[in-house]
Amino acid sequence: MSWPTDVNTVLQQLDRVLAQRRQADPAHSYVASLHQRGLNRILEKLGEECTETLLAAKDAAGGADDRRAALVQETADLWFHSLVMLSHLELSAADVLAELERRFELSGLAEKARRRDNQPPA
Amino acid sequence: MSWPTDVNTVLQQLDRVLAQRRQADPAHSYVASLHQRGLNRILEKLGEECTETLLAAKDAAGGADDRRAALVQETADLWFHSLVMLSHLELSAADVLAELERRFELSGLAEKARRRDNQPPA
Amino acid sequence: MSWPTDVNTVLQQLDRVLAQRRQADPAHSYVASLHQRGLNRILEKLGEECTETLLAAKDAAGGADDRRAALVQETADLWFHSLVMLSHLELSAADVLAELERRFELSGLAEKARRRDNQPPA
Amino acid sequence: MSWPTDVNTVLQQLDRVLAQRRQADPAHSYVASLHQRGLNRILEKLGEECTETLLAAKDAAGGADDRRAALVQETADLWFHSLVMLSHLELSAADVLAELERRFELSGLAEKARRRDNQPPA
Repeated sequence: MSWPTDVNTVLQQLDRVLAQRRQADPAHSYVASLHQRGLNRILEKLGEECTETLLAAKDAAGGADDRRAALVQETADLWFHSLVMLSHLELSAADVLAELERRFELSGLAEKARRRDNQPPA
Repeated sequence: MSWPTDVNTVLQQLDRVLAQRRQADPAHSYVASLHQRGLNRILEKLGEECTETLLAAKDAAGGADDRRAALVQETADLWFHSLVMLSHLELSAADVLAELERRFELSGLAEKARRRDNQPPA
Repeated sequence: MSWPTDVNTVLQQLDRVLAQRRQADPAHSYVASLHQRGLNRILEKLGEECTETLLAAKDAAGGADDRRAALVQETADLWFHSLVMLSHLELSAADVLAELERRFELSGLAEKARRRDNQPPA
Repeated sequence: MSWPTDVNTVLQQLDRVLAQRRQADPAHSYVASLHQRGLNRILEKLGEECTETLLAAKDAAGGADDRRAALVQETADLWFHSLVMLSHLELSAADVLAELERRFELSGLAEKARRRDNQPPA
């Protein structure tokens, strides 16, 4: 799979969409209805999607294309509901990505590359 | 939380790191050891991290900073292990982000912006 | 909580009820409809009930009676769906209880009591 | 699987064992160490065992005897940790069985049998 053109900013855009929908009418927005029902409902959905991801992964292990596509769908559901959870608690994907960046020294690598090349920070 | 400078490409960089570590010595790489132990072990870890995320979210609901930081850690663990699962089945974050982009019409928004700026409406 | 009069045989009776309902019309029996929809649906429900049990336990930790009653409900749901899972795979509560008996040497206690009393094995 | 001789009272015996071990030295008793580490640790284990049960059920669906035996082991782990959770919150298997009895009208059946036999209620 190649990375989509806009993939770099997908999570940033999604973050904005989720913030907008949180303010929407719960009668017309699934995201708003989740926030209205509260944290337990959001976490129930997160747990459901985790279970469905586990089952989809077992079913995808055989390699069938439709089962692999189904796993992508379930993982998208899992990430989506984790984003709603973060939003509900005034956190965002940015916090999680910053943690992953720190943990895997992705910033560090960039920083070291800059120093090695004697370039000033951008 | 502001988005880190390199945040846009964190998942892309992490995808490359995970692909490299999959080939590493299982004695020295946690990622390689997960792949060696197989899909069930990876999914057990995913399930564990999901449970820990649920518990951390309940504990973070009170608003304490250290509890909120712990939730970010657990969510990072959850996303990380979902990336290892995808990698194990020859899928990647790109597939999931493309699905989220499609689902939320994020491409569509970009497409509309392009058309608005350059082309007459269809 | 005192043990109900018939508590000893609750799981045995429930086992029989579940076996009967497996043969019932899925349009009228929840158990039959779960079997008809298959193992993944049964496991999705088991995962959901596990998540709801975790959340109910966190909420019951404060000690409020209604929250404790809700936890009992969720745990009953969890056990119930685990029994449906066992039934779907031609297993039963008897198998699980025999394993718990073996593991905790509950049989062993009975065995020792028999020997102490100089009774021959039944 | 036939029901073991002592199966009727397995959960009652186990309840007593769990109550005793809760008072034991955490250095020598797994149950005592779980209680000492607290509710979150108990719930983490419950979530882990739920995940392992789901995976074992998927693997047992093929019908292999060793996989079916493994599922029984995982379900025993799941029930066991749910009993520890109940014990930690001053609840027990008796509460859950009473709920299942009520829900499936198992008491009702006993009640009808008593009336049919013209026996007075105990």
